[in-house]
Amino acid sequence: MLKVDGQRLWASLMEMAQVGATARGGVRRLALTEEDRRGRARFAEWCEAAGMTMRSDAVGNLFARREGTDADAKPILIGSHLDTQPEGGRFDGVYGVLAGLEVVRSLNEQGIHTHHPIEVVSWTNEEGARFTPAMLGSAVFVGATPLVDALRTQDAQGVTLAEALEACGCTSDAKQLTTHDVEAYFEAHIEQGPILESHGHPIGVVTGGQSIRWLDIEVTGIAAHAGTTPMPYRKDAFFAASAMALELEALAGRYAPQGLVTIGQIDVPNSSRNTIAGKVAFTVDLRHPDDTKIDAMERDVRAAFERVAAQRGVQASISTYWTSPATPFDPACVALVEDATRQLGYTYERIVSGAGHDAIHLARHVPTAMVFIPCVDGLSHNEAEDALPADVTAGANVLLNAVLARAKVAAPVLA
Amino acid sequence: MLKVDGQRLWASLMEMAQVGATARGGVRRLALTEEDRRGRARFAEWCEAAGMTMRSDAVGNLFARREGTDADAKPILIGSHLDTQPEGGRFDGVYGVLAGLEVVRSLNEQGIHTHHPIEVVSWTNEEGARFTPAMLGSAVFVGATPLVDALRTQDAQGVTLAEALEACGCTSDAKQLTTHDVEAYFEAHIEQGPILESHGHPIGVVTGGQSIRWLDIEVTGIAAHAGTTPMPYRKDAFFAASAMALELEALAGRYAPQGLVTIGQIDVPNSSRNTIAGKVAFTVDLRHPDDTKIDAMERDVRAAFERVAAQRGVQASISTYWTSPATPFDPACVALVEDATRQLGYTYERIVSGAGHDAIHLARHVPTAMVFIPCVDGLSHNEAEDALPADVTAGANVLLNAVLARAKVAAPVLA
Repeated sequence: MLKVDGQRLWASLMEMAQVGATARGGVRRLALTEEDRRGRARFAEWCEAAGMTMRSDAVGNLFARREGTDADAKPILIGSHLDTQPEGGRFDGVYGVLAGLEVVRSLNEQGIHTHHPIEVVSWTNEEGARFTPAMLGSAVFVGATPLVDALRTQDAQGVTLAEALEACGCTSDAKQLTTHDVEAYFEAHIEQGPILESHGHPIGVVTGGQSIRWLDIEVTGIAAHAGTTPMPYRKDAFFAASAMALELEALAGRYAPQGLVTIGQIDVPNSSRNTIAGKVAFTVDLRHPDDTKIDAMERDVRAAFERVAAQRGVQASISTYWTSPATPFDPACVALVEDATRQLGYTYERIVSGAGHDAIHLARHVPTAMVFIPCVDGLSHNEAEDALPADVTAGANVLLNAVLARAKVAAPVLA
Repeated sequence: MLKVDGQRLWASLMEMAQVGATARGGVRRLALTEEDRRGRARFAEWCEAAGMTMRSDAVGNLFARREGTDADAKPILIGSHLDTQPEGGRFDGVYGVLAGLEVVRSLNEQGIHTHHPIEVVSWTNEEGARFTPAMLGSAVFVGATPLVDALRTQDAQGVTLAEALEACGCTSDAKQLTTHDVEAYFEAHIEQGPILESHGHPIGVVTGGQSIRWLDIEVTGIAAHAGTTPMPYRKDAFFAASAMALELEALAGRYAPQGLVTIGQIDVPNSSRNTIAGKVAFTVDLRHPDDTKIDAMERDVRAAFERVAAQRGVQASISTYWTSPATPFDPACVALVEDATRQLGYTYERIVSGAGHDAIHLARHVPTAMVFIPCVDGLSHNEAEDALPADVTAGANVLLNAVLARAKVAAPVLA
């Protein structure tokens, strides 16, 4: 099996981590800032040094093309994103971009030509930390967000994406890819969770993105004096919300191990220490790989919350705030990743992506697969985010061989 | 039994309710504002018309004296406060002051002289809505708050109490009462809770103020991604806090019916909809008439919360923020209130005061009792606060007869 140069990849990752490096070992390289401009420029230099041709689209997505032997064949995209969270780490996003570059460098070094062209891509504003929503560049690429809307989006200082692109020196090249022009998309990423590490697997073969359902709950009881209202007279919205929370937690057990439930935000308006809560608002985040299961989870949540409300004589208003269907990846592409992993001798497991990725947008239009590698303690979006060099290399080796299988070798491997 | 003139008392209450009247039928008469100045002036006019002598102390407490037949006998104080909440009602506080005035008017009308002098008092800034803390005037009177500290206290606009007193035209008269000079203190007040109304009693014989304990809780788990962290790996601080809340609620049952538990405030710092709560802070308010029981409640709360924390692998930090001991009222004064109630033929119950009152400060230094009357729907600190004329009269009748029993009739009743 072909292998990448793990040390070269690691060195590039560490060099890129200097662009926007923070005092505590993390990276702050917000989308289309001066740091991001420097990061993008460094990436372009490396790509050009590897013989690739750069172009950028109207939303700043950056494509580096290595030609195939068939000028009419559709390109294979490999990529992820170079932007980071405000207190981000050295691997989230950048790993997928530089692993793509390393695939091309390895092919060059080993004199391998492919039938299909390969384009390494960095998507703009994946983190959503500067511009909302997250995964904006890939959303525009696949048509999920209209370009005009994206360009009008403002950051917290009122700077539009269009202004930020100009300030960053991004120019839109005339000839652009569309989803119809793409043969397949591969993305390598750190897991951003603890599963692979705890199971001791260097590789996760990602089978798709899970279904997400966000609910808004408002519980209405009666605000009253904490000192003068006997317990039996109370309609305490907070105790009711607590009972709902534990029902929700118990419900997750019925959808184990894949069902996930989280209450991220809670608010008691006009709260005071000696006033019984009259109103409590909270959020619910439901996740499951299977859309029919997420529907069932939502039904169960509604029934449980309404039961608690009735028992306690409070009102519960439950609304669906946002829903994102499950996104299965392309079975053929997933099989290529799994085959490459097995042939390289790595232990692995099939895994569902819990977080959002550019690959989720791509997968709805283009045959797509992802490779996960473990991150230390499952930590991400954190300056302490870390990954082991051996795992970084393993993921890139899988990427290389999966891409090569799809891109088709056009000349004999010199080995 | 002697009776007050219920219609006269009601008319005075309604007239005073015009001073600071709000569009929605409530009253806004914050301490030492122009509205309060007008309310105090109206009260003083009425007292002088009833033959009483006015004086004010250094913190603006207003005393109206009706002489007794023994110039050396200590006065009986009757009173409450004229200030209101920003969106207050027509009865909280003012009822106790004008019921005191009505006691004197009734004695005058019926030609009754008492051995002890009677002083009707309005305490400054009971609500704590303009100056902190609440019950400031009575606190200074009993020495719980030093006068110099009280005078320095500022409102939200930076106006000191001393400046507000001057702006309000309050002058400190030379000869002032001390707690040693007071024979007893009686206060009538609306219940501010639902007990009397629900039991159908016009009178509550208040036996004292309850013990209060305020705790601050901080639960520390691990913040993590809602989409990538399997349920068994989570240390969810919010689910832990919810479990603690339900333990707290269950614990109240073991101290029923007198034990009260409330979580008034909760905060999840840096919360986001798709992040598992890493930290949750919340308050606990414990109340019980008995100090030894409140100690036991706090011990039980701590044990329960620590057990939940251990079970869930999170940390719980529990600190006692404030404690206020139980304040039993004087058994002899309480008996006078109870005897008067019984002799007047009113149904009643013995009740503990859940809220703070000036009487709580007085009771620690002077023989004290309170009379409660119901308020509609238990509502108070609300523009819709209401009381029935029959109950308003009943409470004043009880006050009249209890005060008279303590003040001792000096000349035969003309009836």
